[in-house]
Amino acid sequence: MFKDFTNKEIEEVMQQSQAAFRIYQRMPLSKRAGFMRAIATELEKCGDHLIHTAMKETNLPEARLRGERARTILQLNQYADACEKAEWMEISIDTAVPDKNPPKPDLRKMMVPLGPVVVFGSSNFPFAYSTAGGDTASALAAGCSVIVKAHPAHAETSHIVADAILNAAAYQNMPEGIFQHVYGQSFEVGKALVMHPYTKAVGFTGSYTGGKQLFDWANQRKEPIPVFAEMGSVNPVYLLPEKLNASATEIAAMYAASVTLGVGQFCTNPGLIIGIESDALKSFLHDLGKAIQKIPPAAMLHAGIVKAYKENKGNALLQDGVHLVAESETDVKANEGLPTIATVDAKTFLNNPVLHKEVFGPYSLVIRCANANEMLLVAQQMEGQLTSTLMATASDIKGHESLVEAVKNTCGRLVMNGVPTGVEVCLSMHHGGPFPATTDARFTSVGADAIKRFARPITYQNWSNELLPDELKNENPLQILRRVNGEWTKNRI
Amino acid sequence: MFKDFTNKEIEEVMQQSQAAFRIYQRMPLSKRAGFMRAIATELEKCGDHLIHTAMKETNLPEARLRGERARTILQLNQYADACEKAEWMEISIDTAVPDKNPPKPDLRKMMVPLGPVVVFGSSNFPFAYSTAGGDTASALAAGCSVIVKAHPAHAETSHIVADAILNAAAYQNMPEGIFQHVYGQSFEVGKALVMHPYTKAVGFTGSYTGGKQLFDWANQRKEPIPVFAEMGSVNPVYLLPEKLNASATEIAAMYAASVTLGVGQFCTNPGLIIGIESDALKSFLHDLGKAIQKIPPAAMLHAGIVKAYKENKGNALLQDGVHLVAESETDVKANEGLPTIATVDAKTFLNNPVLHKEVFGPYSLVIRCANANEMLLVAQQMEGQLTSTLMATASDIKGHESLVEAVKNTCGRLVMNGVPTGVEVCLSMHHGGPFPATTDARFTSVGADAIKRFARPITYQNWSNELLPDELKNENPLQILRRVNGEWTKNRI
Repeated sequence: MFKDFTNKEIEEVMQQSQAAFRIYQRMPLSKRAGFMRAIATELEKCGDHLIHTAMKETNLPEARLRGERARTILQLNQYADACEKAEWMEISIDTAVPDKNPPKPDLRKMMVPLGPVVVFGSSNFPFAYSTAGGDTASALAAGCSVIVKAHPAHAETSHIVADAILNAAAYQNMPEGIFQHVYGQSFEVGKALVMHPYTKAVGFTGSYTGGKQLFDWANQRKEPIPVFAEMGSVNPVYLLPEKLNASATEIAAMYAASVTLGVGQFCTNPGLIIGIESDALKSFLHDLGKAIQKIPPAAMLHAGIVKAYKENKGNALLQDGVHLVAESETDVKANEGLPTIATVDAKTFLNNPVLHKEVFGPYSLVIRCANANEMLLVAQQMEGQLTSTLMATASDIKGHESLVEAVKNTCGRLVMNGVPTGVEVCLSMHHGGPFPATTDARFTSVGADAIKRFARPITYQNWSNELLPDELKNENPLQILRRVNGEWTKNRI
Repeated sequence: MFKDFTNKEIEEVMQQSQAAFRIYQRMPLSKRAGFMRAIATELEKCGDHLIHTAMKETNLPEARLRGERARTILQLNQYADACEKAEWMEISIDTAVPDKNPPKPDLRKMMVPLGPVVVFGSSNFPFAYSTAGGDTASALAAGCSVIVKAHPAHAETSHIVADAILNAAAYQNMPEGIFQHVYGQSFEVGKALVMHPYTKAVGFTGSYTGGKQLFDWANQRKEPIPVFAEMGSVNPVYLLPEKLNASATEIAAMYAASVTLGVGQFCTNPGLIIGIESDALKSFLHDLGKAIQKIPPAAMLHAGIVKAYKENKGNALLQDGVHLVAESETDVKANEGLPTIATVDAKTFLNNPVLHKEVFGPYSLVIRCANANEMLLVAQQMEGQLTSTLMATASDIKGHESLVEAVKNTCGRLVMNGVPTGVEVCLSMHHGGPFPATTDARFTSVGADAIKRFARPITYQNWSNELLPDELKNENPLQILRRVNGEWTKNRI
């Protein structure tokens, strides 16, 4: 068992993190990248011990955890490459025009780190969105020191990963305190970290309640700080009529798998499926139900998640007008989540906010709309989402312009004829979305642009070349792509 | 006189703005840019009438106002060009890799507008940061509809500019309601605009009190929204010893002019000048005082600003340890601001938060540090700033690494051997800074990157080419620069 940090210990952590930040921010990009790559190597070196510990703490299967560790390593290496490539720095240089009236000064803009970043990892990604996950990698790439509060549901796993990071820090001669690992079951620990004056930003992946609380604390500070909280989503799927007519059976099979993937424990799990009353929708519902019956339940992450799943699903099923379509026919154990599909008509859905809430687990609610107008209304009143999906033919899209627009305006990723689960790590991925999916729709937590959450621009005006940071020097010693007088180039000035 | 809008009128305004947004967001970039350029043309057509009205309402001299209108026109045209060039969209395309395991989908990321934006203009820039100013131009470029609350101190000027925008909207066949002009002396009007569910972002330039209030309201909404408030700054100037020794007289002359430029009514006005006790500092203080005595007072923007200047300056001068160095020797009229220099020792400054506050007007406080360590302490404890300035030789910079770092960590623009007043409008300009200079250090309100405040990324996954927005189509019909599989190119895919 790990003991909660005391206020005194938290104060020490923050002092050390601030001291480390002051050194780390001045280190060259290659050093930051080297540190990140060393963490990746150390994670690999943790071997089976790490995987087995995570299996014990999270109930996630071995293959999934091996895959997730590989993804975490990929993220660290990918963001390290991006860190050195420095495109996230959005460098822009305007050289002086002395004979302009008034004279135009020499102006050179780049990104600098915000300061110490507090990271709250998620329970559903013990590697990729936890201790050495995407937020930590983004903050280190930006030049920030990092304080991770270990997720209590996998504290031992977090401990092993933290040790790996500290080993990497030692090998790479990082300043002491660059990475700090804090334990706390009590919300007071989280609050103390967010409220500390040295903390300059927060990264969070988890529930709406948790994320919104951190956001509110951060805004109540004397000096408010940015919080990027990814708070989950119900990821609506819109079944457009022509497509549904043509492919009801295939869509049902695809979604039975997506709804139950990883026992439904993904923030991109499709929790709402919206169609228009028709024979095709009936047939889809029937096929989806049949498929769900055949999918066995599986162990969820921890007792708290199972309990919440049962309560939230139970509550949803109790609402007026909600009907159970099907459940898995396999016996369910106490620690397992039972795959379940329910249905409701759109009018009832529109008037009952309970049904808009995420039910975290292998559950989806099929909304039956009387007609296309009602589907439009559902889309227009939808809360902000990480993803929305359109199952549609080209003529469906062209015939439902307002619907497509409404769906676009409420999500961060718009999937066509696929499933929202599966989040590719690359520059073109946006993993974010309008509130309440996240606390700031302008940033992503997946892909190297996630670095930008923890950096801010600064302009150097009229500095002599020798005193400028390497990123901005005339001779471009880092050989990075920069905008010089409006044009992208690697050339020297 | 203009009457405050009623809640009913505000509701109508927001309904129309939302309806207009739904149409405007789908218009091509060239249409947005055309609208912005038409506003620029209409502003020019307002001719002398606009200038004379602004002179009457703001007391600003004719040449300054003509210059400011030209700058406003430049901004509209420059951001229109940037809008079409579309680099602010940060387009990234990763094409599918079907034989990857799992298969990598086709992912294409671009920026889309947030929605209706409420703009609160400033009193000190009746054109460039008001009705058709930088925030309005940024929001229109991003694809947002705009609601401007007219500044009560120049409501007639705002009315003329609003008419110019509405004329441009009519000529360019913009949707009705794309631009809305609202009057309100009462803070209830501002609150109603910020709290309205259709409002998706806020731009503000003005006082800390005003900006912080909008920020707090926005965060108390059921759906919090981003507020970019530029709340001013004291813009500290650090006089490093070697430079001061060599150039005390020149620096004094430069700063007498900068402190009093535009009657000190710039958010980049140097309100603190920090030096180390020495003969050179004494000589600097003496010369600065002499120069200030010779600069005549001039009319300030409005009665409220004069009153606040007198009160805030009077209050600062009453603080223990603060000494008046010099005032202008010309008689001052009731509507004028009297150029004034005061001084205090660093210990007193560090212990008195009153002295850290902006005194908006032709006033600056010279802080005398006992030694370099005390100067470092002042820099480390400095609040966030739009700008900081170093008056320094190369060896000063090299010999004061910690100071330079502390100064960098607390500002958005770092000026070397110049004055902070004068904000060039170009891509490399950053006009922003850590709280309390702004509410989000990650964004600028000057330069085309200001557009990014009002846009968010979205990723299209697996869309067929013909259904994608033009920005993302394989053939690149807009001929814009895009990152395709990590490389910037204008080539088709």
